[in-house]
Amino acid sequence: MNSNSLSKGTIMSIRDDARKMKLKAPYMANASIEDRNKALRMISEALKAGADKIFAANAEDMAEAEKNGVPGAVLKRLKFDEGKLKASTDGIESLIGIEDPIGRITLHRQLDEGLVLTRISCPIGVIGVIFEARPDAMIQIASLCIKSGNCAILKGGKETKQTNKEIFALIHEAVKSAGLPEECLYQATSHSEIDELLDCYGDVDLIIPRGSNTFVRYIMDNTRIPVMGHADGICHIYVDKAADQDMALKIITDAKIQYTAACNAVETILVHKDIADEFLPKLNDSMGKVGVTLKGDSATREIIPVEAIGEEGYIEYLSLMASVKVVDDVVEAVTHINSHGSHHTDAIITEDDTAASQFMQLTDSAGVYRNCSTRFADGFRYGFGAEVGISTSKLHARGPVGLDGLMTYKYMLNGSGQIVDDYAKGVREFRFRDL
Amino acid sequence: MNSNSLSKGTIMSIRDDARKMKLKAPYMANASIEDRNKALRMISEALKAGADKIFAANAEDMAEAEKNGVPGAVLKRLKFDEGKLKASTDGIESLIGIEDPIGRITLHRQLDEGLVLTRISCPIGVIGVIFEARPDAMIQIASLCIKSGNCAILKGGKETKQTNKEIFALIHEAVKSAGLPEECLYQATSHSEIDELLDCYGDVDLIIPRGSNTFVRYIMDNTRIPVMGHADGICHIYVDKAADQDMALKIITDAKIQYTAACNAVETILVHKDIADEFLPKLNDSMGKVGVTLKGDSATREIIPVEAIGEEGYIEYLSLMASVKVVDDVVEAVTHINSHGSHHTDAIITEDDTAASQFMQLTDSAGVYRNCSTRFADGFRYGFGAEVGISTSKLHARGPVGLDGLMTYKYMLNGSGQIVDDYAKGVREFRFRDL
Repeated sequence: MNSNSLSKGTIMSIRDDARKMKLKAPYMANASIEDRNKALRMISEALKAGADKIFAANAEDMAEAEKNGVPGAVLKRLKFDEGKLKASTDGIESLIGIEDPIGRITLHRQLDEGLVLTRISCPIGVIGVIFEARPDAMIQIASLCIKSGNCAILKGGKETKQTNKEIFALIHEAVKSAGLPEECLYQATSHSEIDELLDCYGDVDLIIPRGSNTFVRYIMDNTRIPVMGHADGICHIYVDKAADQDMALKIITDAKIQYTAACNAVETILVHKDIADEFLPKLNDSMGKVGVTLKGDSATREIIPVEAIGEEGYIEYLSLMASVKVVDDVVEAVTHINSHGSHHTDAIITEDDTAASQFMQLTDSAGVYRNCSTRFADGFRYGFGAEVGISTSKLHARGPVGLDGLMTYKYMLNGSGQIVDDYAKGVREFRFRDL
Repeated sequence: MNSNSLSKGTIMSIRDDARKMKLKAPYMANASIEDRNKALRMISEALKAGADKIFAANAEDMAEAEKNGVPGAVLKRLKFDEGKLKASTDGIESLIGIEDPIGRITLHRQLDEGLVLTRISCPIGVIGVIFEARPDAMIQIASLCIKSGNCAILKGGKETKQTNKEIFALIHEAVKSAGLPEECLYQATSHSEIDELLDCYGDVDLIIPRGSNTFVRYIMDNTRIPVMGHADGICHIYVDKAADQDMALKIITDAKIQYTAACNAVETILVHKDIADEFLPKLNDSMGKVGVTLKGDSATREIIPVEAIGEEGYIEYLSLMASVKVVDDVVEAVTHINSHGSHHTDAIITEDDTAASQFMQLTDSAGVYRNCSTRFADGFRYGFGAEVGISTSKLHARGPVGLDGLMTYKYMLNGSGQIVDDYAKGVREFRFRDL
C-alpha cells in the first residue's frame, strides 16, 4: 500500500484505509496544539487563495444540479460563494481561539504511595462523518476534527462532488504542510463507500451522520459503530393553565416559523384544558397570520375549526404545519411528550413554579425549557463556540454537542512495582487521596 | 395490562413491559435519595431475613447443576452461602454511603439576562442487564440501578434460576415497600427474552452484558441499543530495554496468575530485543515455577525453548498460558498493541521516562500503565466505591466504570419569554457568563 492510495482511493477499500488511519490516530492525537492550530491557519489561507478554483468547481456542480431539476431551496445550500467562504474562514479563526480540548486532567488520585492514577482527555480516534450536500460542511467538520486531534473519513453529498473535491485537496495539502500526519483525513467520494464505512467496526470509532431523518435512521440501523446524532426532532411546547398567553403565542411563533426545517422547531403544541377555550382561538389566529396550518385532536376541533390529526399521528412536519392537542394537566403533557416525542427539546410556558419544576424533572428530553423558544437548542446559542451536532442519544453526549463530544479519556497509572496480590493478601492497603 | 404482568411476565412481551418501564423511568429518576437509600436498606434487611429461603433455592440450583455435570469451578460461582450474602449486604451498605449521583450541576451559564442554562446529571433511564450465573450479581446490579435512579430489566444465567427468582422476589418487595415505583425492576426469566430485550430500541436506553466473550460479542452484534462492556481483554506488558527486570518478573507473575480468568490479566508479553537474551530465560524460568506455559514468536524461540504461536495468533487465553514476542523498540510494541490488542489495559516496565511517556501517549487503550500490574484496572482499585463494569468503548464511559456510567445529563433552560428571532435579527445579543 503506498501512501497515495489513502487520498486517491483506487483499488484500496475504505476498510484498509480505515485500518491504516486507526494506527496513525495516536500520532494525530499527540500532534501539538501549535501544529493543529497552524494547520487550521493554513487551511484558512489555502481556502482564500484557492477561492477561484473552488467557485469554478462549484459552478460545475450548480450547472449539473440545475440540469437535474434540483429545487431552488436545495440549490441555495449547494451554492458556495464569497459570503459562505468568509463565514467558513471566520469559523476556522474562532476555532483556533478555543482552548485545547486534549490533555485535560479530570481525575488525579493517589491509590497508594507511589501509585498515581490520572484520567486525561484525548481524541476519540477515527471519526466517519457523512454529511449533506453543503460545501461549507466539509470545511467545518474537517476543522473540528483537526482541532480535536481526531482523524476523519469525510463523505459529502454527491450534489457538491466537484466543490468538495477541490476543497478537500486544499485542506489536505495544508494539513500535510503543517506537519500533521497525511493519513489524518480521507475523502470518500463514491456512494458505495458509505456502506463500506459502516462496516469498519473496530477501526472507525464513531459515525456522525447529518442529513434527512430517513438517511440518519438508515445509518443507525446499518452499523455496529456508535452513531452520534439525531434522526427525528419532534419538539413540543406545552401551554400550561398558568401561562402568560401572549408570551406563549410569541414563543410558539418563533419556535415554529423562525426556521421551519430545523430539528429544534416545534411540531406539537399541547394546551391545558382549562385555558383551551380562551387560548386556542388566539393560537389559530396567530398561526394563520404567519401562514401556519394547524391540525388538532378531537377536543381541539370542538373549539377551533382545524383539520383532524390523521393516521400519521403527531409527526415531524418540518414545514408550516403543527399538531395541537388538549391535555388535562402537566402530567398528561409529559406522558404525551415522553411517548410521542423524540427526546430532543421540549418547553413549558407557565408562571407556576411547581408546574415548571414538575415538567422539567419528568420530561425525558435532552433539553427541557421554561418560557423560551425550543430553537435555542444549539451549540452556538449554548455558548460552546463550536458545534459538532445535536444528539438525542443519552450515552456519551446529549443535546447540542461541542468539541467535547469528539473527545474521550484514558486512565494513566504510574507505579513503582506494585502488584495486586499484595493488596488482595492485605500486605498493602489502598490509600486513596485525590491530588 | 395489570401491574402484576410486569413482574410475572405472562402473556406480555418484554417490549410491552419495557415501554411501560420507560414511561415510569422519569418517576424513578425523581425518587428522593432518601427513598432510594431506604430501598437499599430494606433490600439488605430482606436478604438477611430471607437467607434460608435463598439458600434452599440455591441448593436446588446446585443439585440440578451437579446432575448436569457442571464443572467444579463453575459450581463455586453458582453457590450462594453466608459468605456471599455478607459480601452482598456489605456492598449495599457501602453503596448507601456514596453521594447521590443525581442532580449534580455540571454547567450553569447565563446566555442572556433572564435566560439561564443548567446542565444537570440524571439517570440514563431503562437499563437491560444480562449477567452470568452468579447469584450475587443480581443483588449488585439491582442495587447499583436503584442508587442511580435507573429502571432495570434483569436477566440472569439459567443455572441460578431458582436462586435468582427468590432473590428478585425479596428485592422487588423491598423496593415497593420503600415507595419506589414497582415498575422500576423487571426480571426476565426465559432465554428467549434476551432476543426480545435486544429488540427494545427506543424503550431500553442501554444494555450491559456480562459473561463470555462470545456472549458479549453476540449481544453487541444483535442490537441497535447502545452496549456498555467489553468482549475481549487482551492485555500486554512491554518489558523495555531500560526495565528493572526483577520488577518486570514480579509484575508479569501478578498480572498473569493472580486471577487468570480476569479480563485485565496479561496475555501477551513484549520484550525489547536488546534485553531478550538476558530476560527471556529468566521469564521462562519464573513462569515455569508458577505453572505458566509460554508460546513465542520465532525470535523468542531462538532464545528459549517454547512452543510457537500458532495460527490463532495473539489471543486471550484466560488460563496459565501467555504469548511472548520480541520487538525492536517502544514504537513496535505500541503498534503491536494497537493492532492486536483489545484497547483494555497495557503496561510498560521501564526506568526510562521518555520511553514511558511515548508508550503512554501512543497506546490507544482505556488504561496505560507504567511499572505496575494490569490487574489494577478495576473500579474498586480506582477508588470508585462501586463498579458497574469495564468498558472498552471510547464513547460514554471508558475503562472501569463507576456509578457515573449509569448517568446522563439534561439541559434545563429557564427563560422569561426569549425568542431566537430577536438574536438572529440583532435585536438582542447573547451575554454568555458562567454562574
